[in-house]
Amino acid sequence: MPSRVVGPIEGDAWGQALLAGVGGHESVIVVERDDGLIEPDPFVSRNYFGEPDSWSDRDHWAIERTVGTVLDVGAGAGRATLAVQAAGRDVVALDVSPGAIEVCQRRGVQQCFLGSVDDLVETNPTPFDSILALGNNLGLLGSRTGANCLLNALAAISASDAVIVGTGLDPYATDDPLHLAYHEANRQVGRLPGQVTIRVRHRALATPWFDLLWCSIDELAELCEPTPWRVADVYPGPLYAVVLRRV
Amino acid sequence: MPSRVVGPIEGDAWGQALLAGVGGHESVIVVERDDGLIEPDPFVSRNYFGEPDSWSDRDHWAIERTVGTVLDVGAGAGRATLAVQAAGRDVVALDVSPGAIEVCQRRGVQQCFLGSVDDLVETNPTPFDSILALGNNLGLLGSRTGANCLLNALAAISASDAVIVGTGLDPYATDDPLHLAYHEANRQVGRLPGQVTIRVRHRALATPWFDLLWCSIDELAELCEPTPWRVADVYPGPLYAVVLRRV
Repeated sequence: MPSRVVGPIEGDAWGQALLAGVGGHESVIVVERDDGLIEPDPFVSRNYFGEPDSWSDRDHWAIERTVGTVLDVGAGAGRATLAVQAAGRDVVALDVSPGAIEVCQRRGVQQCFLGSVDDLVETNPTPFDSILALGNNLGLLGSRTGANCLLNALAAISASDAVIVGTGLDPYATDDPLHLAYHEANRQVGRLPGQVTIRVRHRALATPWFDLLWCSIDELAELCEPTPWRVADVYPGPLYAVVLRRV
Repeated sequence: MPSRVVGPIEGDAWGQALLAGVGGHESVIVVERDDGLIEPDPFVSRNYFGEPDSWSDRDHWAIERTVGTVLDVGAGAGRATLAVQAAGRDVVALDVSPGAIEVCQRRGVQQCFLGSVDDLVETNPTPFDSILALGNNLGLLGSRTGANCLLNALAAISASDAVIVGTGLDPYATDDPLHLAYHEANRQVGRLPGQVTIRVRHRALATPWFDLLWCSIDELAELCEPTPWRVADVYPGPLYAVVLRRV
């Protein structure tokens, strides 16, 4: 019998995992969902630091659809920011993780913002032409209400003809009983089925619990309705990319 | 904010991970220590199902030192049992995990025992010539008192000149601050430094918390003192193997 269960320690698990992965070192994260499902990613260096020649077609499709100045939302280790910057374009890496921002800076990202999109709105930045959300960062929409807030916040810092270009995953492309049960539990409390409450763990650290939202393209289109954004282009599939255009 | 944190579900996580890994399928476990440290093993099929030609020198050293009839303690997917059985020798696979025993049976292990060593003692079996504990299963000694109980229980079901052949790890071969802090916390409550309280997680399942004991060869020799076992041969290193002989 254990005499104590004291961990994990709340902190910047994701950022510390990225810092540990700098230089190609082995670094592991575990994503833990609130139903207990654990999904390790033992390849932080490979998956979050990759040069464009290692990217998926979907990622290329997405980044090619950015125009003008770019805000990279949830920049992580800065792989997308660095690619845009290398093309000589104006790009800001935004992340709430101090470790992620430190990694971006160490890797040569010139413009970083440590904080949330709401924090950035308060600084009244020059409007961006493109918002970039690779790495399934459309999940940061979080929930029905979260999506509304984030889409409106992004509108507040973007040009009148701006685009949001991002990747996401379709939660319905599964027959895994754990996921199907999770969807059903969500429906019963009025959430969108693909809203997942997770935390990221690295060694003895865990982030606070937070929500990601996995939604179908149709659901995304519906979430856009009360905002200035409309689905304009789609790279279809269970792992999709999408362009939202401001109207 | 999460509305609920309901998982994981207590169950045979380890056995279910082995069952999922049958046939070379991808299967992942995460070992979670009570200080929050998580260590994924994404290669269950590779690491627990391997044929002898993929084994370490240490494992070969150990299995070659078994004699006569064998009890494979913590048999897992049965890799050691199957190797002994293939050599035409009498061997029993013991495991507390129903899933592990099911995997052993599916893979052709002829003699299985589902339960603990204490459970086996109660069946009054024919004494074994060798007890085998690969896969660092010397850790099953668990604690100072656990070691005493298990070593005496193994004596009760073994021949008068029997050996215990097993592998373990030296907890002091580290400079990882998390491990050093864990050792120190153990010392302060009177535990051996290398006693770790862990659970195994697989998908949404977690085993109950249990203790493993990592000890140096010197500590192991000390734990043997009040029992009929003595250290007789050592394959040295941070990952060691050892032969304990009954006196």
